[in-house]
Amino acid sequence: MSKIRIGIVGYGNVGRGAAKAVEAASDMELKAVFSRREPESLNIPDNAFSVLPMSSAAKMTDDIDVMMLCGGSAADLVEQGPYFAYMFNIVDSYDTHAMIPDYMRSIDEAINTAAKKTTAIISAGWDPGTFSMIRALSEALLPGGITNTFWGRGVSQGHSDAIRQLPGVKHAVQYTIPIETAVETVRSGSAPVLEPKHKMLRECHVVAEPDADKTEIETEIKKMPHYFIEYDTTVHFIDADEFFSAHSEMPHGGMVFHSGNTGENKHIMEFSLKLDSNPEFTGSIMTAYARAAFRMAGERLFGAKTVFDVPLSYLSEKDRLTLIKELL
Amino acid sequence: MSKIRIGIVGYGNVGRGAAKAVEAASDMELKAVFSRREPESLNIPDNAFSVLPMSSAAKMTDDIDVMMLCGGSAADLVEQGPYFAYMFNIVDSYDTHAMIPDYMRSIDEAINTAAKKTTAIISAGWDPGTFSMIRALSEALLPGGITNTFWGRGVSQGHSDAIRQLPGVKHAVQYTIPIETAVETVRSGSAPVLEPKHKMLRECHVVAEPDADKTEIETEIKKMPHYFIEYDTTVHFIDADEFFSAHSEMPHGGMVFHSGNTGENKHIMEFSLKLDSNPEFTGSIMTAYARAAFRMAGERLFGAKTVFDVPLSYLSEKDRLTLIKELL
Repeated sequence: MSKIRIGIVGYGNVGRGAAKAVEAASDMELKAVFSRREPESLNIPDNAFSVLPMSSAAKMTDDIDVMMLCGGSAADLVEQGPYFAYMFNIVDSYDTHAMIPDYMRSIDEAINTAAKKTTAIISAGWDPGTFSMIRALSEALLPGGITNTFWGRGVSQGHSDAIRQLPGVKHAVQYTIPIETAVETVRSGSAPVLEPKHKMLRECHVVAEPDADKTEIETEIKKMPHYFIEYDTTVHFIDADEFFSAHSEMPHGGMVFHSGNTGENKHIMEFSLKLDSNPEFTGSIMTAYARAAFRMAGERLFGAKTVFDVPLSYLSEKDRLTLIKELL
Repeated sequence: MSKIRIGIVGYGNVGRGAAKAVEAASDMELKAVFSRREPESLNIPDNAFSVLPMSSAAKMTDDIDVMMLCGGSAADLVEQGPYFAYMFNIVDSYDTHAMIPDYMRSIDEAINTAAKKTTAIISAGWDPGTFSMIRALSEALLPGGITNTFWGRGVSQGHSDAIRQLPGVKHAVQYTIPIETAVETVRSGSAPVLEPKHKMLRECHVVAEPDADKTEIETEIKKMPHYFIEYDTTVHFIDADEFFSAHSEMPHGGMVFHSGNTGENKHIMEFSLKLDSNPEFTGSIMTAYARAAFRMAGERLFGAKTVFDVPLSYLSEKDRLTLIKELL
């Protein structure tokens, strides 16, 4: 059987994670990575695949079955999503929760105007993505229950970036840390509806410029609207050596709890992820959904889809009967 | 919009759980329960729905959209599954793992010979069912990882029944209890492939007949093949009062772990259920899949299906766009 021909758009952390997962899949072939950067600057090991300029993708609609869009939501996907969905089946991990319906509409509009219809699976990461699946499943099985999602311990790229924008900051990383007492309260089934600030702490590790005023940096971080002001935030100043030796990994994870009743009886569902590498796990999820996008397009199930629309049997290399025998 | 008209076949523990869940669903209507027992013996509160003899179902194909089969796998479903699938959309929680492919084939054959095609979602409980979904999802996202399922703490109906077959036993209940050290080993990510006996203890509470030899009962339990011989089994003799006051609930639960790698990086997925009532949770799952069966039949997606074939959006009362807005 011929392999699913994959293209990757964007070769940052998620793009590299996706490339690793695609190369590990025996039913897939990584045709090319599309990047705005110079190919030589990407350090591709053994020239394992070609790196092409973004603009050359449009000429390759016959060579690629699914394009995996690995850019950021705000800067890249809002434009790349509709652009590529017009020409290719795509998968992405668009993660601006509040904007998903608008983004989905823009993808559907692109597909509707295309001569050759495509399938686009959007927001297929771990949140949105696998966490959303657990939220939807548990809410369907125990309607009217209470769902609580916790994130961490892990690096928030958005919060780290926000700190790096401050004057006097050279390097910065922000860890989101679930508040253990809140986790235990929810796990015990008492099921309060918690505000984000009651669920998570924010821990910042900052390398300051030599002449920077650290007290002022700390104050600026803690009062930053949306990002830090309402949270219990701690700021640690460290040197560059410690930064690169202790804070260059990208672990993440989190938990989804759903607590609901059938009459007098209570039931608690819990799902958790502990990830050594957030971008590599995200790349792995996108790879499974790229397989699903290819199969759904083959069945003419076109348009913008989410993880709520894709049967689990579409995700696996194994065929349906093997899955039923081995895993049901 | 008219409601989905539900029939329930079998009014044991799962049937009563299903009735409770159907009555709580605003898009469903419980048309009738079909039972082999005398209607008067079932104690239906306020005559909330009609109880009809099993044989009358065949005349009601125009009155019921989905039949929920709530009998046991071995004694009931092997016959009732194909019989009802020939006439109705069905959902069941068939749970003899090794026999699922055969059972599925028997359902497909019944549907293939029927003039009016139907949709049958089989094995839609929590294991097989939701646990299977987590196994399939995690194996698709991290192929080649190690999956471990633990069951308990909870009552195993099969093991309790096995004890009750022994001479001198009046009442008995068996709790399956996960071995905490094994759970912690797996949770830490060391991911051994464990035999069932290394995962679970079996704790039995037995009410003996007045003249019975308790030592002999204990010996007979512990050496019972398949059920107890290879497990660490404890037997407690209690009186009938304690039995009915402390052991009449049907709690259950369990955990699924999947541990896999992307190169050097390790990722651990965990899903757990803590259920006050095993049959009521099972009835709730079957109710969500009854909704899915109705919708899939409406889209002419006929034949035997499993939880691997059903998109999550089919399970909820909420429409797809609401799910995307609220839960993605």
